[in-house]
Amino acid sequence: MIHVSIIGSGNVAGHLISAFTKSEAVHLVQVFSRSGNVVELVPAAKITNDLQSLKEADLYIIAVSDSAIAEVSKQLPFKDRLVVHTSGGLSSEVIDPKNRRGVFYPLQTFTKNRTVDFREVPICIESSTENDYDVLEQLAKSISENVYHISSQQRKALHVAAVFANNFSNHLYKIAGDICAEHDIPFDILKPLIAETANKVMVLSPDAAQTGPAKRNDTNTIGTHLAFLTDEKLQHIYKTLTLSIIDDDKKL
Amino acid sequence: MIHVSIIGSGNVAGHLISAFTKSEAVHLVQVFSRSGNVVELVPAAKITNDLQSLKEADLYIIAVSDSAIAEVSKQLPFKDRLVVHTSGGLSSEVIDPKNRRGVFYPLQTFTKNRTVDFREVPICIESSTENDYDVLEQLAKSISENVYHISSQQRKALHVAAVFANNFSNHLYKIAGDICAEHDIPFDILKPLIAETANKVMVLSPDAAQTGPAKRNDTNTIGTHLAFLTDEKLQHIYKTLTLSIIDDDKKL
Repeated sequence: MIHVSIIGSGNVAGHLISAFTKSEAVHLVQVFSRSGNVVELVPAAKITNDLQSLKEADLYIIAVSDSAIAEVSKQLPFKDRLVVHTSGGLSSEVIDPKNRRGVFYPLQTFTKNRTVDFREVPICIESSTENDYDVLEQLAKSISENVYHISSQQRKALHVAAVFANNFSNHLYKIAGDICAEHDIPFDILKPLIAETANKVMVLSPDAAQTGPAKRNDTNTIGTHLAFLTDEKLQHIYKTLTLSIIDDDKKL
Repeated sequence: MIHVSIIGSGNVAGHLISAFTKSEAVHLVQVFSRSGNVVELVPAAKITNDLQSLKEADLYIIAVSDSAIAEVSKQLPFKDRLVVHTSGGLSSEVIDPKNRRGVFYPLQTFTKNRTVDFREVPICIESSTENDYDVLEQLAKSISENVYHISSQQRKALHVAAVFANNFSNHLYKIAGDICAEHDIPFDILKPLIAETANKVMVLSPDAAQTGPAKRNDTNTIGTHLAFLTDEKLQHIYKTLTLSIIDDDKKL
């Protein structure tokens, strides 16, 4: 049984609390919540709003915004314990060195009130000692089937890759929806296409899945589309991504 | 019972043949195939490689590449019949006016050897007479639950929107995969994120689903990412899409 305390009460904290609560291998010791956000997920006795009253645990997971991690870690009233953060973008070294540092980064986009099947969420772990690694691995495997040893440098790459795969893709859905809305077409019509686009790369490489005018170098259609897009910003995005697809093909 | 002949034997033709074959409301009269590509889908007696030998049908679906539609329609040896194409990008007017013209555009990304559940595929139809519309609607509804009356102007918008939602999203998956590969991270690690990104907009608007450094206007992380991306092309795409997300938020 691994004894875990969570510091934070945002989206990631809430989803971790739900996952740990369901795991028989984990005992959730305490949750530090300044806001009281997670009250519905844990018994009141386990919630504290005072870092000084944190009890002993095998590890402490700091799941707060990137900009607050360093400060929170400094305020911890103990030393030589295992303290990890959940950030994709930061090194474990932002954590105050009075404790043993590590990372427990679940690579997923979390939304409040939307259940995520944690067994599918890749968890990227990193630590400075083998013992700590074992603890993190055991914890990660108790809630997920996809546990990866990812170094700080790899995690940086992964964080950037996730921005392309998630943030930017979602923004393209938004643009597609805006173009439809302008012509009284419901966003719903795009949903099967969006779903299949994602489903395809579960079994094909994105290279093999690529279709469309840029892939075919169909300059007629590209010209028609650019003429149709009167908004300069959209024209620029269309050109940038079209050239990038064409450019990739030249390298093959 | 609607009697349909299909002219073409590419991806779209193959998927339509499969869907029509399963529908009890449709009788597939013939398939014109120059290449013989679709032989495994239809009895040999229904395949012809000679447009002159096309038999009578309620409608003819031209499912060939955009650039060949006009020429194929000219070569049809009959007139005053209903002839439609399946292209998102072209007006029905590319079809030779000796026949009654229309459009039967399934909005999906089709891959050879990958089964698509046609009941979910939005079919966008258009015709010049009400009678023809009824035939197209009956046909579309016999294979799909999502049938839309979409004008030529709307279809143009939809075709551009589909490029953003499908072609460009897939290209972003590819970039994300490339960034991972450069750091010895398997593409598999991104799959749950890609799946959830698409799943989210099935229930939330893309606006509500947007997360990430651009959405938070987190200039620290954006700067770190741009410094990490040494490839100028990727930097440019990152900047372009980040500015677009920030710009959208300013308009709200």
